[in-house]
Amino acid sequence: MIFYGERNPAPNPRRVRIFIAEKGIDLPETRVALHKREHKSDEHRARNSLGQVPTLVLDDGTAISESVSICRYLESLHPTPSLFGETALEQATVDMWIRRIEFQLMTPVGMFWRHAHPLTAALLTQFQDFGESNRETYGRVLLWLDRELADGRAFLAGERYSMADIVALTTIDFASFTGLEVPADAPHLRAWLDRVSARPSAAA
Amino acid sequence: MIFYGERNPAPNPRRVRIFIAEKGIDLPETRVALHKREHKSDEHRARNSLGQVPTLVLDDGTAISESVSICRYLESLHPTPSLFGETALEQATVDMWIRRIEFQLMTPVGMFWRHAHPLTAALLTQFQDFGESNRETYGRVLLWLDRELADGRAFLAGERYSMADIVALTTIDFASFTGLEVPADAPHLRAWLDRVSARPSAAA
Repeated sequence: MIFYGERNPAPNPRRVRIFIAEKGIDLPETRVALHKREHKSDEHRARNSLGQVPTLVLDDGTAISESVSICRYLESLHPTPSLFGETALEQATVDMWIRRIEFQLMTPVGMFWRHAHPLTAALLTQFQDFGESNRETYGRVLLWLDRELADGRAFLAGERYSMADIVALTTIDFASFTGLEVPADAPHLRAWLDRVSARPSAAA
Repeated sequence: MIFYGERNPAPNPRRVRIFIAEKGIDLPETRVALHKREHKSDEHRARNSLGQVPTLVLDDGTAISESVSICRYLESLHPTPSLFGETALEQATVDMWIRRIEFQLMTPVGMFWRHAHPLTAALLTQFQDFGESNRETYGRVLLWLDRELADGRAFLAGERYSMADIVALTTIDFASFTGLEVPADAPHLRAWLDRVSARPSAAA
């Protein structure tokens, strides 16, 4: 099994690294150098026709892409500690929170990066007014998250750390790298962020 | 258990309706009238703080939002026929295809609807040049899907109809409603579209 990824700041391979660290799985990362455009090479496109990382290639050559799908597969091989929930309701709740973070939070971060960040401007045509508008969206969504966490629960999907926290942490850390800031008046969100950032896995 | 949704053209409640039809589950839809903005009412926000449909409310009052998460929950109650895959690899593959469709295809459709469609213009500030640019993205992604399906497999995740097909069908039908067209030169995609559209569940 080979895990193709890339070091920071790319948020998606980091999700898999954190997941692996939380599980204690021994699976080294084979680097696909994004700055050399290796992810768009024929060699990598044969693994993932979208030319993205992370991608997991199994011993029989089957390739699984998408950070969360890779982690789901690893969860089935290494069920404990559960990071996708154990009961049907826990699993649905973790899945709901993963999706909420990706659609509500990662989408504006991605659009800001794609359409307003100078590093991307060198590569692609941007719609900068639209891109900049995602700064306000990002702050608004974080304030919604802060209100959600105001009930005092420890983690996004409840009292248990889950894949949803991994997706949110990597998204917010990547957003910070792009220049998007966490609002000052979000105490519950900041407490959650301190909590998940203090876990040893966050160094992955 | 109450399933809050809305009729066409809203694509996300339809995913749940098709899923229910494929499973043969008896779960009527309680309508949340989007054109009356009922999804943004305090009553509905108490079920889903994002003010979205679909939402599933369990008998104990617990609410699950996000179309795919609702279907995952229903799959655990009604495991056959499996629409999320049975083996670990099948499950990861279905999940990967759900995500690819949502991020590659539904995102540009949603951005076109949000930023270029006249029905949305009445409600929200649009970045129309950006919105229009998603027309080209949509066509390009469908041509990628056509190449993916050129290996002759019957469905997106393999030989078996799955949740990924439901997500793709509802996305493409909604895109057609907004005025986005399936390219003429996409024979494999069109054959797949005919195949999934011919299933009785597609009427849901």
